[in-house]
Amino acid sequence: MTRSRTPAPPAAVLPAPLERRLAALLGRRLSTAPSVREHHARGEGWDRPTLPAAVAFPESEAEVAALLAACNEAGVPVVPFGAGSSLEGHVVPPANGISLDLRRMNAILEVSAEDLDCRVQAGVTRLQLERFLGPRGLLFPVDPGADATIGGMIATGASGTMTVRYGTMRDNVLGLRVALADGTVIRTGSRARKSSAGYDLTRLFVGSEGTLGVVTEARLRLRGVPEAILAATCHFASIEAAVDTVVEAILIGVPLARSELVDEVQMHGFNLHSGLGAPERPTLFLEFHGTPASVTEQSRQLREICLRNGGSGYASAVRAEERARLWRARHDAYFAALALAPGRRGMVTDACVPLSRLSECLRETRADIRRHGLLAPIVGHVGDGNFHCVVLCDPGDREQIAAGRAFVERLAERAIAMAGTCTGEHGVGTGKVAFLHREHGRAVELMRAIKATLDPRGILNPGKVLGD
Amino acid sequence: MTRSRTPAPPAAVLPAPLERRLAALLGRRLSTAPSVREHHARGEGWDRPTLPAAVAFPESEAEVAALLAACNEAGVPVVPFGAGSSLEGHVVPPANGISLDLRRMNAILEVSAEDLDCRVQAGVTRLQLERFLGPRGLLFPVDPGADATIGGMIATGASGTMTVRYGTMRDNVLGLRVALADGTVIRTGSRARKSSAGYDLTRLFVGSEGTLGVVTEARLRLRGVPEAILAATCHFASIEAAVDTVVEAILIGVPLARSELVDEVQMHGFNLHSGLGAPERPTLFLEFHGTPASVTEQSRQLREICLRNGGSGYASAVRAEERARLWRARHDAYFAALALAPGRRGMVTDACVPLSRLSECLRETRADIRRHGLLAPIVGHVGDGNFHCVVLCDPGDREQIAAGRAFVERLAERAIAMAGTCTGEHGVGTGKVAFLHREHGRAVELMRAIKATLDPRGILNPGKVLGD
Repeated sequence: MTRSRTPAPPAAVLPAPLERRLAALLGRRLSTAPSVREHHARGEGWDRPTLPAAVAFPESEAEVAALLAACNEAGVPVVPFGAGSSLEGHVVPPANGISLDLRRMNAILEVSAEDLDCRVQAGVTRLQLERFLGPRGLLFPVDPGADATIGGMIATGASGTMTVRYGTMRDNVLGLRVALADGTVIRTGSRARKSSAGYDLTRLFVGSEGTLGVVTEARLRLRGVPEAILAATCHFASIEAAVDTVVEAILIGVPLARSELVDEVQMHGFNLHSGLGAPERPTLFLEFHGTPASVTEQSRQLREICLRNGGSGYASAVRAEERARLWRARHDAYFAALALAPGRRGMVTDACVPLSRLSECLRETRADIRRHGLLAPIVGHVGDGNFHCVVLCDPGDREQIAAGRAFVERLAERAIAMAGTCTGEHGVGTGKVAFLHREHGRAVELMRAIKATLDPRGILNPGKVLGD
Repeated sequence: MTRSRTPAPPAAVLPAPLERRLAALLGRRLSTAPSVREHHARGEGWDRPTLPAAVAFPESEAEVAALLAACNEAGVPVVPFGAGSSLEGHVVPPANGISLDLRRMNAILEVSAEDLDCRVQAGVTRLQLERFLGPRGLLFPVDPGADATIGGMIATGASGTMTVRYGTMRDNVLGLRVALADGTVIRTGSRARKSSAGYDLTRLFVGSEGTLGVVTEARLRLRGVPEAILAATCHFASIEAAVDTVVEAILIGVPLARSELVDEVQMHGFNLHSGLGAPERPTLFLEFHGTPASVTEQSRQLREICLRNGGSGYASAVRAEERARLWRARHDAYFAALALAPGRRGMVTDACVPLSRLSECLRETRADIRRHGLLAPIVGHVGDGNFHCVVLCDPGDREQIAAGRAFVERLAERAIAMAGTCTGEHGVGTGKVAFLHREHGRAVELMRAIKATLDPRGILNPGKVLGD
């Protein structure tokens, strides 16, 4: 992805006593090399990059805890960093801060097929885990587009294409180990499937974006790889018809595993990018999980609903290679979008509304795109009411960028006005801070009070989620 | 149920200025009548009852908020009360406190079939909601044994027989309205299916047992009533064989809607209580939800697994009356247990362990029951690793009660030692406070800090969850 060329402001240096203390702790794994700091200056969003004062590469929970204790005493900010794929500025450090790169803590510690769970360090990535679990017949069903770290997915409360069936990170994290601001390490949850023993700290940390503590380890809920998987696609005359199809399927209880909408603009991108050769019309990408008989039945039910809604070209793919090709196309959506306007970068945004408002929200959003002359293909996790627009902007064109940002604002406000949320899965970071009060009202004050309780010196990813 | 005969300690009276203020707010809906206070002195547990100083019956959120503001200023404790079916002392007030009875706030405010959600006041009961939703083809799938209020179910983080398929209260509450200690009202969550916008306050309040705020209203996630439902029972030579059957079914991905285990002692109770005429052996009560074809397939899969594990007499029930009879028997488990020893009351307890430890935990627990000469039938939500023992005790026999309590302690410790939890669904109240530190370690300090932040004067259900 083309990096923004905005010049980075000069970085501060660490206070000398802290630097000595951390160097004693981490040795060469505390780096102030310009290239290392540059790599930790930003995620994949459009925020102005900032060089951290230093980058730390801990290899154990004890090192994370000791680093936090030292930084807390010195009042120096700490910003956790994983794959760097965040879209809302979560990993951009303040100039006097330390970027805490957790990717060396990437051990898969334990996998239990009988309990359908696993224990992993925060730096394990989604694809690393998938490669480990697949041959064992196991599935971790949260699949954001990027090869994010599990720690990052916990931080943003991520979800993905299978959320309609298996839930978000909030539903699939059983427990955590967390290093708090002062270096105290706590564990949350238990290995039991459910518990009513005390406050739900696990879910307080999921989605807290590194502002309440640093997750070092997680116990995740797994599923068995389904006995049978069947994928299907169908084309529609309108976005509304495609949405209506999914809503109808959910209402009659079809246990859809995936229900992804791609608009005609994005379909054009797919054709340009991967020669998909598909009709350039709103299209549903569907998947069914179950026994051979049940996926066949589900697909038959969906085919009928598609036809009733004017769908055409309903095609199913049973063989693994066919399915892989189809989902690779969907997962490459970002790059396919770029094919629509070579040289531009995508400003990727995220909104989520109640299902009953999804058609209306998409219609108004597409009218907005047309009205402002933007190029912004849409893909959506229809079953969740969640969709993304990729606004294609020339990184050198300030007006285009400003127009993109204004569109993102209007979309967030539209979603909130429809009783939805300004972010279904990308998180707040700095990009959505402005909408938090509008969405949550006085509850934001309670969030602030919790933040102040857990991080009284304000060293944990300051400015994110709640602003300054 | 026989009430404990422990004499209630004398109740304090409200400070006169507060009583005047509340009387002006609520009129005759602030009661100090002895019979009303007596009714609010305890739940269904074995705790010593305490008369509250007064009982308030608010009819609106504004009244709840005003009452809290007044009590917070006066430093007078407030204990929310719903159906009074709590088993762990949650609703027992301190002698100088106010019992806040929310049952007059029992309006079903909104139901949306398209969004599969509804909005209800806290005092709506489970069966009231079921009667309303059923004719509309909708299902709220959390079904604890009692006809609890939704507010109470939120407070304890309740679950039930369908949790293996549809999740607990934590998974089925989309958002809340909560009156905080100082009377501020906040809303949490949104109407969207998922959100990454800020801290997950909804789940912080679910399971907080009225210690962080008073829930006045909830938006709940609904499901469509399944097109087809099929129930089945099967008898086993051992508890282990029954557990293995369910574990195997879950591992191959059968989407069990219910998987309830009843031990041979409890089966004897069923036969005495409702003339079920069933073999007095460990028995699974199963249910499948889906299309007609899929429930038939699921039942066929289960029958095979049952046979492989030595199960016998696999019988399925398709007709609604047959199923209703079967589940009525299961839901009457408490009363059926009482039939085993007329004159005794049940000390009902609750533990939850990882699936891989469930057989072992049940085996050790049954050995414990035998070793101590207790009469304690067992029923369990096997798919969740959660089970209940009903220790039958003579309310007048102190030794028996002490033996029951000691058993409950050993069970909680056993579950925690197996990486499980001291309560899967009944909550902490006062009954499980002693185990919280053992289960959560230092995280309890964080819970205390959150409590102190949200309720600085300590007026909200003091002593519950975290102790004094």
